Order: sequence, then C-alpha cells, then structure tokens
Amino acid sequence: MHTVERVGELDVIVKPSPVAMVWNEPGRPHDALAAPGVRLAPGEALVEVELATICGSDVHTVRGDRAAAAPLVLGHEQVGRVVAIGEGAVRADGSLLELGDRVVWSVTVSCGECDRCRRGLTQKCRSLAKYGHERVHRGWELSGGFATHVQVRAGTAIVRVSETLPAAVAAPASCATATAMAALDAAAERVELAGALVLVTGAGQIGLSVAAMAIESGAEVIVADPDASRREFARRIGAVPVDPNAKGASPDRLEAVLTRFEARGFREVVVAVEASGAATAVRTVFDVVGVGGVAVIIGSGAPGAEVSVDPESIVRRLVSVTGVHNYSAPQLVRAVEFLERSWQPLRLDELVGATHPLTEIDLALDEAATGRYVRVGVAPGRRPV
Amino acid sequence: MHTVERVGELDVIVKPSPVAMVWNEPGRPHDALAAPGVRLAPGEALVEVELATICGSDVHTVRGDRAAAAPLVLGHEQVGRVVAIGEGAVRADGSLLELGDRVVWSVTVSCGECDRCRRGLTQKCRSLAKYGHERVHRGWELSGGFATHVQVRAGTAIVRVSETLPAAVAAPASCATATAMAALDAAAERVELAGALVLVTGAGQIGLSVAAMAIESGAEVIVADPDASRREFARRIGAVPVDPNAKGASPDRLEAVLTRFEARGFREVVVAVEASGAATAVRTVFDVVGVGGVAVIIGSGAPGAEVSVDPESIVRRLVSVTGVHNYSAPQLVRAVEFLERSWQPLRLDELVGATHPLTEIDLALDEAATGRYVRVGVAPGRRPV
Repeated sequence: MHTVERVGELDVIVKPSPVAMVWNEPGRPHDALAAPGVRLAPGEALVEVELATICGSDVHTVRGDRAAAAPLVLGHEQVGRVVAIGEGAVRADGSLLELGDRVVWSVTVSCGECDRCRRGLTQKCRSLAKYGHERVHRGWELSGGFATHVQVRAGTAIVRVSETLPAAVAAPASCATATAMAALDAAAERVELAGALVLVTGAGQIGLSVAAMAIESGAEVIVADPDASRREFARRIGAVPVDPNAKGASPDRLEAVLTRFEARGFREVVVAVEASGAATAVRTVFDVVGVGGVAVIIGSGAPGAEVSVDPESIVRRLVSVTGVHNYSAPQLVRAVEFLERSWQPLRLDELVGATHPLTEIDLALDEAATGRYVRVGVAPGRRPV
Repeated sequence: MHTVERVGELDVIVKPSPVAMVWNEPGRPHDALAAPGVRLAPGEALVEVELATICGSDVHTVRGDRAAAAPLVLGHEQVGRVVAIGEGAVRADGSLLELGDRVVWSVTVSCGECDRCRRGLTQKCRSLAKYGHERVHRGWELSGGFATHVQVRAGTAIVRVSETLPAAVAAPASCATATAMAALDAAAERVELAGALVLVTGAGQIGLSVAAMAIESGAEVIVADPDASRREFARRIGAVPVDPNAKGASPDRLEAVLTRFEARGFREVVVAVEASGAATAVRTVFDVVGVGGVAVIIGSGAPGAEVSVDPESIVRRLVSVTGVHNYSAPQLVRAVEFLERSWQPLRLDELVGATHPLTEIDLALDEAATGRYVRVGVAPGRRPV
C-alpha cells in the first residue's frame, strides 16, 4: 500500500514512490522508472492503478509494427482509484471528482476548444495527448497504464465504475469497449440496428464488444474469427460464429451462414464491422454489405496492406464505409453503462485469461502477443508467483 | 401538335402516333417505334416531352460500356406536359396531377412497400423499374425520354415545374440535379456544410450542381476538371477551379489551391464529392478528406478500375466514404426548388450547349460523347435543320 501526502497546493508525495514501466525499443526489456513527487495542476488527478489490460496496439508497438514516441509508458486500458485531486477536477458528467472514486478514463486528453474538439472530434484534438502513447518527459512521467499510478490530466473524460464491477471488465472500457460503442454509433447514424443482420470480423475485445452491443440492440449478429475459442465465446453471447478459414461445404463458412439467414428472411447484411485488422477482412466488409448498408472499419490501427475496392459497387449499393478511431466522452460513459449491466450474463470477466505482476510486463506482453487470450492483465499490486 | 382522345376508361389515342427512338446495340442507329394507343392504369400519366437531355450514362450505354436490357428507349432526363391522366395520379406532394401540368419525374418507379422502400431506399426497390433503362415491351413502349411521349407509371415521383423555368434547366433535374442533392445530403448527414471546405472532382452536370448547392449552403468549393471551359463555368458560379493535369508550380494544382485555403484558415477538406467516374479521382477523394471528413462517390456508375485504399488512413482520419446512386422523391422536389431559385443567377441554362431534333438522336449522342458540352438536348418538337 502507498501513502499519499499533500505538500502545499500542488505537490503530492507518494510513498513508496510510484513506478512506471518504460518501454524503449523492440526486443529490449522495460525499465522501471520511479516518480517520487507528482505536481497536480488544476483539473488533474492521481490514480492508483488496480489493473491494466494489454491492448493489441501495445503489442504492435513493442513488436515495432508502428511508430512510437519512445521512451514511453505503454498501457491505456486500466481501472484504478483516485488518491489525489487537483483543484476542480471533474468526472465526465461534470460532477466533482472525489477521493476514493474507482474510475476509468479516456485514452485521449483534449483541449475542448480547437476546431476539431468543437466538431465533436475530441479524439483528434489539435493539442491531443494520449495515455500510453507519450514520450516520457518531466512533469508527466506517469502517463501510461503499465504503472502503479497514472497522472490523469485535465481534458480527460473520467468515469466512475461501481465497486462490484470486476477490474477485468472495467479496465478495457477506455479503449476496446468505448471504441466498440463508437463503431456501433457510426452504423446507427445511418441504419436501424434492431432487426438488422450484422457481421463482425475479428472476435477480439472490440469485436466481441460490438457483437454483444449489437445483440442488445436487437440485431442478429455473425462473428468471423479463425480462433475456435473466440468463436465459442461469440456463440455463448448469442452470435453465430463463422470460420474465415473454413472451406468447401463447411457449415461454418460465411456463405453458408448467410444462406441460412436468407432462409429466415434476412436478405442482406446491413452492417459489417471490421475489428480484426486483416486486409482480407477489410475487403470482406466492403463487399458483403447490402444496399444502403454500412461498413465500419476499426481494426486497421497499424500500417498494413492497401485494399482494392470497386467504386461502381460502392455507388450502386449506396454503401457507406466509415473509419472509427477512439471515441468521444459520451461513448465512454455509455460503454461503462453497458459493462455494468451486461458483464455478468455475458461473463465478460473471462476475456482476461491471465494476469501478471507489473514487474513482469515483458512476460505479460509476450503472452498477449501469442493471441491465446483476448486480454492479458497487468496488476501492480500482484506479487510475482 | 398532337391531339389526344380518350377512349373509355383507360385507353388514350394520340394523333399523330407517339414515337419512341429504340436503341438496339452499339454502332447501330436507333429505330423509330410508333405507339398508337396507350392504356393508362390508375396512377399513371401520359406526358408529351418538351426536351430531353443526354446523361453520361446514356453515352456509356450506346458505347457498350455497361450492360443494358436492349432493345430499349434511352433517356431519363426530360421535361414535358401532362396530356392524359390515369385515375388518381398524384404529384410527389400528394396533390392530384392536372392536365397541362409541366413536369419532371423521378428516374425510378418504386412499389413503396418492400423492405427497401420502407427503409427509404426507393431507388433500390425490390420491383424497381427505371425510365430509359427497360427492355421495350408491350404495354410500356413509351418508357424513355428519347420519345415524343413518356408513359409515367404509378410509383413515380412527379414534380411540377414553373412555366418560366427553361426546359434546358428543368430536364436534367430528374437525374443530375436530384443526384447532386442526394450527394450533398449524404455529406450533410455527418458534417456541417456552412464554412466547410468542399472538393468536387468532375465538372459535369452533377459536379457543377453539387458545387452550386454547396456554395449556397455556405461552403467554400474547389472544383477539379481537366476541361478549361468547365473550369471556367465553375469559377463563374463561385468555385475555385483546379486542373488535375496541371504540373509543377502551376497555381491551378490542387496542392497549390489547398495551400492558399490553408493560409485563409481552412485546415482540411471536410467534404469531397467524386462526380467524374475517373479511378484516379476516386483515390483522390479517399485521400484528400481530413479528419472526420466525408467522401461521396457518385461518378462511378459504369464498370471501371478498382481503386486501392489504405484502411489505416481511413481509420485514423475517421473518414466516411458513401456511395450515392439516384435519389429519393424528396430530393427531386428539393432539386427542382434549387433550380427554380438558382438557374438565373448561375445561368444554368447555358449547360445545354446544343439541341437536336428527336429524329437525329444518333447525331445528338455522338455530340454528347465528345464532351464538348455538359449537356446535349433532344427536342421532339424541333425540326431538323
């Protein structure tokens, strides 16, 4: 346990010192960085991390698949408790933040005043900062979830979670779940989800969240993933699984599943959400949606192959293709509401398959990279076993 | 002049007989087909054509660029006068159609009851028929605008135009202008047009209409077209022209124009509308729109090259790409309203560069294919000169 002492207006001394795991470059183990004192500006908060989960993008970064501002503290999916508060810090609903609040928070820090923030695109703020994405610098060492503490900045959407929500369910809210909510919002802008046939490619944390939310909205959902255990999870939450590698007359092929839906009166796929990042799946969602349908692309967060599309077909089908990256504050709020009411019947806590101590972050990232589990957790409070 | 005689409840005898020009196959001149008697079912109307205009898709069809159900009567942009009315025929606003109404009408005939019509996608009705696109068959010989008369079917949106609206302005309403309205609606669903920077590729009838409507909505508009006279028209209606073939330090290059807009505080293209059908332009609109922007594709109505796109860029920019094909009835109504108030200041009548008698339809189509004029007209009442 840490003790927190306030020194004057701004400075907070935590003992033992907060520690962040610093990533430098592919193949090199993390370094531990101690941050003895934290200066909290107005609107800021210090949060003691209970659990962080490893997002696919953290894995991409440590593999060197995408550009990163190293050295940095990775991790942007986490849940924790507020242990110190800067003047006037508020929750996303505008109420004052309180010591002891159990919270999740947006991956983005936004100014709220630039042209993009005014257009509602806070995740693309002109002076954007992102947890788990910033080069370590003096004054914001505690900038990522793979740490004992995170210094949460003004301009972050902070959302309380209940004491009973499992940490394994709460942690992914600030990336996977809220992004899934943004993806479905992009579809629901144009089409009615209730009664619609929805295809989700990729049964990771985002894809499964999209599937669960779409089913809650009254859609019939098909989930495509090459991994049998992920397909089984999709089936358990009420989706119809499809194996993109199935061949011939297999009943698990997308074509076979679509034929069965057609027999039930579903004449076309109205929404297709790409959450795998595979170029072939991007092409699938472009091609599969029917007239007036919507394809939403979320998975392609790292550089990958270009995809060839047929403009005439997009025109004749009146198809809409929308890219979604991160989300806005209200979407995080609704993501948490979704988790609070749905985690238990859907057993969403089971998506975190293993949890490691913070000191074993490299091991945890290696395990996440295997794809064996949808999520791997990192817990500062846990001792190595 | 034709005389129209009513025989019983349904049958109409027109003297001299209505004539439709029938297209059979590429390279073969049209045949004239006389249709002496017309049987008008409830909700139908017989319209004497005043002027038809040749759409780019008519040119594609006679060239053999796209599949067509020949033999057929081409033409789906026309204005005419109601000379006979089937029981209960109504205008798009629900009022009863009257003899003598000067009208334009939707390119599509829709049932209004199928799943697609109920979703508002009347242009993709499950039992869709389209003027200028149907194999000639007994009972609907007068199915296209390249004729003295058109039999307008129930399920068509019929819109009155004023006596003072030039025929050259009214005729394109039912394809180019209404489609332009649908394209801007698709953009306005997601972004605010007022104050936005809009790029339109292709300064044909659709592209120029989109540009004019966007300017009316308060947008700043850039129009790209390789043809100097079309760029000049774009400049005259208030757009900034760009030459896609300009090279080096030319001030007419898109990059140069964007730099000038940036200096004025326009940081990104919010809407890009592709109305040329060129694959390179499709790629341009995918690439040029900024964060949260919308690309609308209308021009790709004929088979063409596939286009390679970068999924990561679509995701990171939160871009939306929407295909638009035809339009719904309210969009035709608003297209006519736009023409009535705007044709005079914008001199939209000048877009029809030449008009030929109906009997010289082959010559008219040859001239349209040169691209010399934005539109070429075909007038049944005009004698060969």
